[in-house]
Amino acid sequence: MLFMPKEVKFFDLFDAQAAIVMECASLFKKIVCTPEITRDMVSKMHSLEHDGDESCHNIINTLNESFITPFDREDILDLTNQMDNIIDGIYLITNRFYLFKIFEPSQESKHLAEIIEKSAIEVSQAVLSLRHKKKIKETAKHCVEINRLENLADDIRDEAISRILNDEKINPLMAIKQKELFEESEGVTDMCEHVANTISSILVKNN
Amino acid sequence: MLFMPKEVKFFDLFDAQAAIVMECASLFKKIVCTPEITRDMVSKMHSLEHDGDESCHNIINTLNESFITPFDREDILDLTNQMDNIIDGIYLITNRFYLFKIFEPSQESKHLAEIIEKSAIEVSQAVLSLRHKKKIKETAKHCVEINRLENLADDIRDEAISRILNDEKINPLMAIKQKELFEESEGVTDMCEHVANTISSILVKNN
Amino acid sequence: MLFMPKEVKFFDLFDAQAAIVMECASLFKKIVCTPEITRDMVSKMHSLEHDGDESCHNIINTLNESFITPFDREDILDLTNQMDNIIDGIYLITNRFYLFKIFEPSQESKHLAEIIEKSAIEVSQAVLSLRHKKKIKETAKHCVEINRLENLADDIRDEAISRILNDEKINPLMAIKQKELFEESEGVTDMCEHVANTISSILVKNN
Repeated sequence: MLFMPKEVKFFDLFDAQAAIVMECASLFKKIVCTPEITRDMVSKMHSLEHDGDESCHNIINTLNESFITPFDREDILDLTNQMDNIIDGIYLITNRFYLFKIFEPSQESKHLAEIIEKSAIEVSQAVLSLRHKKKIKETAKHCVEINRLENLADDIRDEAISRILNDEKINPLMAIKQKELFEESEGVTDMCEHVANTISSILVKNN
Repeated sequence: MLFMPKEVKFFDLFDAQAAIVMECASLFKKIVCTPEITRDMVSKMHSLEHDGDESCHNIINTLNESFITPFDREDILDLTNQMDNIIDGIYLITNRFYLFKIFEPSQESKHLAEIIEKSAIEVSQAVLSLRHKKKIKETAKHCVEINRLENLADDIRDEAISRILNDEKINPLMAIKQKELFEESEGVTDMCEHVANTISSILVKNN
Repeated sequence: MLFMPKEVKFFDLFDAQAAIVMECASLFKKIVCTPEITRDMVSKMHSLEHDGDESCHNIINTLNESFITPFDREDILDLTNQMDNIIDGIYLITNRFYLFKIFEPSQESKHLAEIIEKSAIEVSQAVLSLRHKKKIKETAKHCVEINRLENLADDIRDEAISRILNDEKINPLMAIKQKELFEESEGVTDMCEHVANTISSILVKNN
């Protein structure tokens, strides 16, 4: 056995949290690609966000009760907080679509939602492989892919914002809303990148 | 004695900086709830911000001269920089209200100023209890409350921004200004949360 | 010799990355002060950004193969990622000027580009002096100067945004674009400050 039972528990808890990250991202893509965003959809996402909070608290409580951890205590704290940030970020955007009364998201928003889903899948796979010391190269590969997706999201956001702001016929308030949603969506891929950076740093330290 | 005299000095310095954080937040609430924001009020805040800088430099200098510290050197650096960020953030918003010629803040801005004040009080109490190893649960409670207040600020900001951007009669430039002020105000509660995260991390490591 | 050959390699790699940071900032100032920003200029910056990525990957690969490092592995990772952020940030703004069809930057944008260049020079000097343990005071001085420049950029951005948003004749979409560019430019000085903070933290830990 590579890790002791107490240590294994952390990996189980991380996998559970990563599963919620993936579920949120998948629901988000579904919502953004739906003809109309409803209050009910926002509620569903809110309930997932609540599950995410519990999952995060669970990890922090376990950390406070554990003398032995599979890697640095700070990294455990960072990892769980950063996964929580992804979930919070996705909920925030879902809620904003509703509050902004943008019921039909733009093509670029749909594209960004797809990238978020892909990125969340990579996050979850990186977390899943973290417990296997022999899979270090595979874990690193997921991190590289998360970085690539973040760069892609940057480009889509920049093009989308420019399209909006160069459109002389657009209502300025609508321009502000759309710009905000593009930025927040790209921001979620940044949060995925933060997870990738923490995992890279864990790999580097425990190499 | 739990800590050695050299170590105690850091707690005294942190308490002094936390007192400035609280003073800034309290002045900010007063300013935002005043019928008219004047240049003189901005100057007062600027002078507090200057005191904050000195307090922060004081801690960093002490750190550079100390061989023994009550907790990790990086955490001392993070904690003082993060408290400085709160002070800088509050000054920035005060200045923006003035520069933007928004002399009568909105209800939501007043509400956010109240939350900032509450959060600053929690920050100062968390810092104050940090030197007492027996008060670890109390310290953790303040951190939880800071998180709750940050979530509350998120909701207020989201509702406020939506109200502004859904108002078809608003001047777009005024919409941009108000949105900015709501975001910056919520940002200060994020900075309080960063302090809470650092303190949580100190508790976790020195448990 | 202060450091072992393996350790010296990291300083050489950091110097190479810092040189790219400086080159980007210098090209950025030139572009912003040019009568018209062209696609060709954006491509030049993109190619520098690509060099920066390689430089960063080079450092991370070396880190993964090294058992001995001149300072903490996490700090090496932070430092190289933060320098990469400066380069990415400068590229992003260059691209936005072009995408936003703002071919003649404002006086404040030019002023911010000058500050970015100065800040990049300080970053590179701080990195260069990092290998000389006797130059600790000099290194710290560069970090203080980076902080001063960041504060200056804050003031310029605040005044510039206010000028734009108080101008009743401005096209709201143009106001959004200009505001964005001022904020992104100031953001680059924040990224320089992150490097300064990491270097300060390295000094504090290895004092």
